[in-house]
Amino acid sequence: MKIIQDIYEYIFQSKGKKTRALITLLASQSKKIKPLRRIELASIIELLHTATLVHDDVVDQSKLRRGEKSVNQVWNNSYSVLMGDFIYSKAFMLMMKLDRPAILKELASATNDIARGEIIQLNLFENSLHLGLDDLLKVSYLKTGRLFEAATKTGAMLANSSDADIKNFGLLGKTLGIAFQIQDDILDYESLHTNTGKPALQDFQEGKITFPLFYALKHLPKNDKTFLLEHLGSKKLTKTLKNRVFSLVRSEMALQSTQTLLDAYISKTKKRLDSLNHHSCYNEMLNLIMFSSQRKS
Amino acid sequence: MKIIQDIYEYIFQSKGKKTRALITLLASQSKKIKPLRRIELASIIELLHTATLVHDDVVDQSKLRRGEKSVNQVWNNSYSVLMGDFIYSKAFMLMMKLDRPAILKELASATNDIARGEIIQLNLFENSLHLGLDDLLKVSYLKTGRLFEAATKTGAMLANSSDADIKNFGLLGKTLGIAFQIQDDILDYESLHTNTGKPALQDFQEGKITFPLFYALKHLPKNDKTFLLEHLGSKKLTKTLKNRVFSLVRSEMALQSTQTLLDAYISKTKKRLDSLNHHSCYNEMLNLIMFSSQRKS
Repeated sequence: MKIIQDIYEYIFQSKGKKTRALITLLASQSKKIKPLRRIELASIIELLHTATLVHDDVVDQSKLRRGEKSVNQVWNNSYSVLMGDFIYSKAFMLMMKLDRPAILKELASATNDIARGEIIQLNLFENSLHLGLDDLLKVSYLKTGRLFEAATKTGAMLANSSDADIKNFGLLGKTLGIAFQIQDDILDYESLHTNTGKPALQDFQEGKITFPLFYALKHLPKNDKTFLLEHLGSKKLTKTLKNRVFSLVRSEMALQSTQTLLDAYISKTKKRLDSLNHHSCYNEMLNLIMFSSQRKS
Repeated sequence: MKIIQDIYEYIFQSKGKKTRALITLLASQSKKIKPLRRIELASIIELLHTATLVHDDVVDQSKLRRGEKSVNQVWNNSYSVLMGDFIYSKAFMLMMKLDRPAILKELASATNDIARGEIIQLNLFENSLHLGLDDLLKVSYLKTGRLFEAATKTGAMLANSSDADIKNFGLLGKTLGIAFQIQDDILDYESLHTNTGKPALQDFQEGKITFPLFYALKHLPKNDKTFLLEHLGSKKLTKTLKNRVFSLVRSEMALQSTQTLLDAYISKTKKRLDSLNHHSCYNEMLNLIMFSSQRKS
């Protein structure tokens, strides 16, 4: 059907960073496995990720994705829900072709965890008063870290790596994914003007308590905290209000705490990579980790 | 998480007919296979079906499901999208436990076809002028017949039936599912007052051209046809307008053509069952087929 093809092409024309596909390709490096098989697995990971994005845009009512209009904007929510399902099931069909049950099991479980993480996130924000750092880390792991973990872990599994390597690659993916999410949260407050692919303060306007906001709420005096909570989730912020939110969340204490957390997860990731220093992907993975901690979009 | 459990319990407390689970249990009857395994497969089929329903209610903006408020009414669209994903992936996780790759392959492909059918349906209604019976049958197959087909086929596969039986069970499920959909379409125009579990004229108000409406448009004089097309998809129909839509679609010619089509599919299904008359489920399946053609909800 032309309509499916049209939406499919629209979704995949936009240039994502394809970080998840990339780490799968790196973790699956091996002379024993055909490159085509590694590309198949990387495509499956990217399909799963894309399906979650298409559904997320319905959940968040986002109008932009990777700097382009989201599917729900060009078509509507109905098409987004069904195209997400179409892409998910396509990914599972391709997994069947891979014929590696343990990989399929890991990816089914990751897909379930992602949905679980998103539901917990929705629910947290509706009860945001007693939110702890542990809650935020758990959500970041489930909604982002989990697929990074599955991407590296299944890559290593595909290459028939040792159990120790599979475990280390999984843990590397997990902490890298959480770092990736912290960095994503920082970018929401990066600049009111710079183009990061999504509008500035999008998370804030969706009512999401992310890491920078969490630390701001923790460190700021009571009246500033009240101001932020009052406007959190407001879809219509004036320029003046946006500027105030922006400068409050970018207060030195909040920024520093978030950066410290990001550094800790980058550091955990690098430490994990140290135990994989015999692996052929070592240098490229190190570059990718360094890039992730400094990316601007 | 309590929220996931709450929604999960809410969804599964409502009493569906569980027709798909039932035909899986029938097709998998065998002394060689443990009842628990058959129940596991039937549960997976029912989970897949339920995930599609939760998403359909977002797509159709339905307020009722099985006579109860839909998930999107009690919570909201975001929870429905994510709970649908949660249930889909849960089904795939359970499939992994079954450890039968051919069954998993069939179910992944069926899930993909269902999404495809729903997208085609959405798109058809936006271009409804040149809709043919073939289009309607194709959509009915994909969105309903396909899972019935997978339910019977994988049931027979689980029981290690002969290739001929697996094929016949699949085709039986396919035609039964299409008959089921035709019957569903008829129920939308059954009565303005009887409780069929969903509001009367729901399909019509969603802008869906179903079998009864298709035949009405084919047989009615031009001014009646124009009237129907003018009000198709209108969310706000007065009682007078509803009565007129109702009586037009229930015109003798339209009703008779739809009934003839339903009879043809029931007849095909029974014929298919004849080639399975050696199977222990024969009588029960025959009862189910007869019930399906006469159900009122």
